[in-house]
Amino acid sequence: MDKAALNKIVSGVYVVGSTKEGKLNGQIINSLIRITADPVYVAISINKNNLTCDYIRSSGVFSVSMLSTSVPMTFIGLFGFKSGREVDKFAQTHYRLGKTGAPIVLDHTVSWMEGRVTNAIECETHIVFIGELVDYDVVSSGEVLTYEYYSTVMKGKSSKNAPTYTAPEEKKAAVTGQKYTCSVCGYEYDPAVGDPEHGIPPGTAFADLPSDWTCPVCGADKSQFEPSTPLRT
Amino acid sequence: MDKAALNKIVSGVYVVGSTKEGKLNGQIINSLIRITADPVYVAISINKNNLTCDYIRSSGVFSVSMLSTSVPMTFIGLFGFKSGREVDKFAQTHYRLGKTGAPIVLDHTVSWMEGRVTNAIECETHIVFIGELVDYDVVSSGEVLTYEYYSTVMKGKSSKNAPTYTAPEEKKAAVTGQKYTCSVCGYEYDPAVGDPEHGIPPGTAFADLPSDWTCPVCGADKSQFEPSTPLRT
Repeated sequence: MDKAALNKIVSGVYVVGSTKEGKLNGQIINSLIRITADPVYVAISINKNNLTCDYIRSSGVFSVSMLSTSVPMTFIGLFGFKSGREVDKFAQTHYRLGKTGAPIVLDHTVSWMEGRVTNAIECETHIVFIGELVDYDVVSSGEVLTYEYYSTVMKGKSSKNAPTYTAPEEKKAAVTGQKYTCSVCGYEYDPAVGDPEHGIPPGTAFADLPSDWTCPVCGADKSQFEPSTPLRT
Repeated sequence: MDKAALNKIVSGVYVVGSTKEGKLNGQIINSLIRITADPVYVAISINKNNLTCDYIRSSGVFSVSMLSTSVPMTFIGLFGFKSGREVDKFAQTHYRLGKTGAPIVLDHTVSWMEGRVTNAIECETHIVFIGELVDYDVVSSGEVLTYEYYSTVMKGKSSKNAPTYTAPEEKKAAVTGQKYTCSVCGYEYDPAVGDPEHGIPPGTAFADLPSDWTCPVCGADKSQFEPSTPLRT
């Protein structure tokens, strides 16, 4: 049994949105299938601990926005690694309300759909929602973001509530310097790479990062990073 | 509402296998999601009319073999467009029985998994099976076949029972000659392209194909092809 077998499952990276008592929330998922051809039903899987799961259970409606490969990691950080209990994700996002009242994300979106839940099946840590679509449309001609592209090209991680989450193994420090891992989202700062997108050239040790530097994925500050392997003293 | 929105859903192309009273069968699906991280549950959607659906309902077990991009169209034709009621698909395929007794396809396979059904949810034309995996492994280092690759690079079609099936629209005959469509699998013979893989050069009209020529996807004979647009007489 090699867990790598399961990483071969093909999936996209989407934002699921929902609503409850006038409030809006959304989160990243990588678990969506189309079930039927016509009428169109889909199934999605969401962790029971997530606020969006509570909203969908309560309202019985959901939207799915299919993200483009041009989505920045900060957007993934907002929708994938922060909780709607602490931050209003839609206050920083272009969206519109669909026919169901669920918020449809319009930033970095190729196409979207919205539906009403017909079944909710509890399955250990997650709930599988099955729903009939009531509306859908194309927004842009971009390429849809696959989980493969996200993990290999964008070097993205899975959140602890995702079905694809794997606990990080202890890694050896590279000869080029000690790496540090973000305890919030799993992003690893590698001195050999730096963070050129935010002005940090390759060769910058973690200790030499400016004090206001934050995780390029989830925005956590330096205090939330831990050495990828214990420092030897 | 533009149905093209739904074509953006990312999926793989897999063979699902099952067993009933010592018989084996399998079929192509493009609807699989992982639901949980640990223990691992997955969900698949299968058309109620398909023999494999009957086998899974009866035995409560299933396997999923994740196909490689190197899979030939004839294999897709066998598992995707022929019924196990008429042909013994596993008589022509390398496989082994898994722990559950479900047949695991080893030809053109990157990795596989097998599981036991915990829930079966009826949804219009399809049944969504949720199952806990009991075994999985990697077979080869090939690339997993995505539905995107299958439809755009391999020019593959969906069977009439697939969630991605779209009825062919009436098409204009190209200036290069009348096209013919296979009534079994939807493959379109285009005289401008020919079927070079089987010795038919570009520029060969459908009428000039040898009488023993068969559909390169599903093996149907010439009599099962229809003009893609009505011939004008």
